Parts: sequence; structure tokens; C-alpha cells
Amino acid sequence: LVSVLSSAIIVYRLPWTWKCSKLLMKFIHAGLNTIAMILAIVSMVAVFEYHNARNIPNMYSLHSWIGLTAVIFYSLQLFLGFAVFLLPFAPVPLRAALMPIHVYSGLTIFATVIATALMGFTEKLLFSLRNPSYSESPPEANFVNCLGLLLVIFGAVVLWMASRPHWKRPPEENAKILRPIGETPEGTEAESTMTDGSNADKSDLRISSEAARKQNLKLDEAGQRSTM
Amino acid sequence: LVSVLSSAIIVYRLPWTWKCSKLLMKFIHAGLNTIAMILAIVSMVAVFEYHNARNIPNMYSLHSWIGLTAVIFYSLQLFLGFAVFLLPFAPVPLRAALMPIHVYSGLTIFATVIATALMGFTEKLLFSLRNPSYSESPPEANFVNCLGLLLVIFGAVVLWMASRPHWKRPPEENAKILRPIGETPEGTEAESTMTDGSNADKSDLRISSEAARKQNLKLDEAGQRSTM
Repeated sequence: LVSVLSSAIIVYRLPWTWKCSKLLMKFIHAGLNTIAMILAIVSMVAVFEYHNARNIPNMYSLHSWIGLTAVIFYSLQLFLGFAVFLLPFAPVPLRAALMPIHVYSGLTIFATVIATALMGFTEKLLFSLRNPSYSESPPEANFVNCLGLLLVIFGAVVLWMASRPHWKRPPEENAKILRPIGETPEGTEAESTMTDGSNADKSDLRISSEAARKQNLKLDEAGQRSTM
Repeated sequence: LVSVLSSAIIVYRLPWTWKCSKLLMKFIHAGLNTIAMILAIVSMVAVFEYHNARNIPNMYSLHSWIGLTAVIFYSLQLFLGFAVFLLPFAPVPLRAALMPIHVYSGLTIFATVIATALMGFTEKLLFSLRNPSYSESPPEANFVNCLGLLLVIFGAVVLWMASRPHWKRPPEENAKILRPIGETPEGTEAESTMTDGSNADKSDLRISSEAARKQNLKLDEAGQRSTM
């Protein structure tokens, strides 16, 4: 579940996906999140059936409360994501206004899922290790502790990747907006050089997009600097 | 501990601190983090002494492993923060390069501390509630579960405040950089209008800084839009 979730998060940050169309990228993102949602539902049904079969009460622990909250918010996130960003009905200003909220709540849900998993590890170790108990540090205990630590490191790496402005997909729209006004696009001089012209235009766009990204970064840095 | 930590995080986001000098703001941030560090050390000593007094092994649980990792990284963060951002020796490019890492690791440590606290709640509830046990959901269990849920909500609010670009302290340096080149600052025409001039300059700076902030936001939005 966590690995599918994190793949869905970092898909926009992987250079090989930058070559995909934006729509394909969105489909990969939505598809991975749908798989993660199905896994979450399957695992929740499994937990309830296991509890019922062994007469263990449901939903008493903090792990279950926070886990259920995360799943509820996750399904809301998925539904809103489909409705606003995948279906073609929402106007661009609405998408622009909701995008930062979508990104923030996605990352917050991801962090909450990791915290829930860590609480689950703690519970399972305390319940299952009996002779020797958890406090006597048998190899299984150390093994699961290492897994938990790796999970935290993994989550931190994903959040790092997702929050770096220069790991963002190169902003094509930006490049057009930021192109100096005096400059006219190349490849418009003659019909005969159409192919060459469009190539030149493409490489120009790439350079310009790179410049735009750098300009964004500089502004970002300047913003950072003012609180330094 | 969590409340002092979060105060230290959001101090740059509070409008009343925008009126402070940048140095005073940094001192408040460093001071609150130092208080949080002292609280963390005191509580760790208390835990070890409690364990030793009751013959409970130390450092066996996932809670303790992740908690200790967080404290080690936190002390590193505090030391580097003092050395780079508070002492006047580090050059500006080094500060600019380390600032995003400082912000990221601060927020990640904060989230890890909350996860550690949630694991601590889970452990304590399982150890302490015996008759009735945790799984029978006595009022204490529900009370602590609610506390845990509130802690998650609180953490999410702090991370929201800390990650909003428009809740950042208005970037004065930015305003100067982004001011159109043709424009000359007001208040330089005559010595006799010095007071008025400087007032005009101030209000101009405020407007210009507001404009710069908006421009930053627009670029940010455009960046967001490209992955929409």
C-alpha cells in the first residue's frame, strides 16, 4: 500500500514520465491511487473479518482511529481528484485554486498512513511476541524495528522528492509566459523550413523552459533568503 | 515539547512577528528550539531513570528507536542552524543552499516526533489499561485516542501554515530585485520633503513588496498548473 501510494506521489517527479503527455501522467497517478485505495479497502475488510473470527473488538485502538480517518480522507481526496482534475468539466481557476490543497492533503495523508503503519507495528510486536517478549529484544523485534526505521526513511525520501521545486516537471506553460516579449518564436520565416523550424522551436522551448525553471528557482531562493 | 516545536516552526508565519527585525525573529526561532531540545533531553533522562528504577529494559521498542533517531537529527539540526544561520560567519550562498534542507529536515523531524508520540500513546495504553483492558474501550482509552487524533490534526495545521507560500514573511529583498528597472525610488527629488519622501518610499515599498509576493504566487501557481 505504502509503495503504491509513494509511486503515485512521485510519478510527476520522474524524468522518464516528463516525456509522457500530461494526460497519460495524470492517468498513471490516478490509476496508482485507485490501486492503493483498493488495497486499503481489502486490508480493512481482512482486519474486520480477522477481528470478528477471533472475537477481538473492532476500532478500539488509536491505530484504528487514525487509520480509518486517513482512509476516509483518502477516499475524499480520490473522489475530488477525479472530479476536478481528471474529468474535463472543472474550470482552470478552480483547478489552480484546489491544486495546492490537493498536493498538501495528499502528502499529509501519506505521512499519516506511515504513522498508522508504525502504530500497527508497535501493536503487533506487543501482541505477538510472548516468549521471549518484545522487551527482551528477540531477533524478530529488532527486525521489525529496523523495518519501521526504514519505513520512516523511505517516507522522508518520498516527501523530499515531492517537495523539491527543481524536481518538478519542466513547466511548459511557464516558458511561454516568461519568454521575453520582444522575442518572436523561430521557424515562422519560411514554409520551406517547416521541419527545421519546428525543431529549432522545440529546442528553443526546451532552453526557454530550462531558463524559466531557473528563474523560478531564483525567485524561490530569494523568498527563502528573506527569512534567513 | 510538540507545542514548543510547533511555535518555533510557525514563528516566521505569524503576522505580528513580521514587524520584528529579522534577527529578533531568528532569535525567537532559535530560543524556542533550544527550549524544545532541553525538554526532549529532560524527558529522555526521565524515561531512562524510570526504566532503570523498575527494571524495564531500555531502547527495545520501535517508539524508542524512532524517538532517539529524531532527537539525534534534531540536535544536528539545532547545531547546524546555530552555526550556519545564527552566527555571522557563513557566506550567503551557503545559507541559500542549506535553507531548503533546513526547512525540509525541520518539518520532517516535526512529523517524526508526532509519529513517535502516537506510538508512545499506543504503548502506554496497552501497558497501563489492565482492568478493563484497552480493547474494552474504557473512557480513558477513548480520551487518549481523541488526544492522538487531535495531535494529528494539530500537526497537519502546523504543516499547512509552514508550507503556504503566501503565509511567508513578506520578502523585502525580493521587492527590491523585482522593482522595474526604469522606476527610481521616490523621495529623492528634494531634501526638504525628506520625511514625506521617506514615508512615500515606505508605502511604495510595501505596495511593491505586496506586488512581488503576488508575482511569486502567480509563478508558483503557473508551476502548479503545469502538472495539472
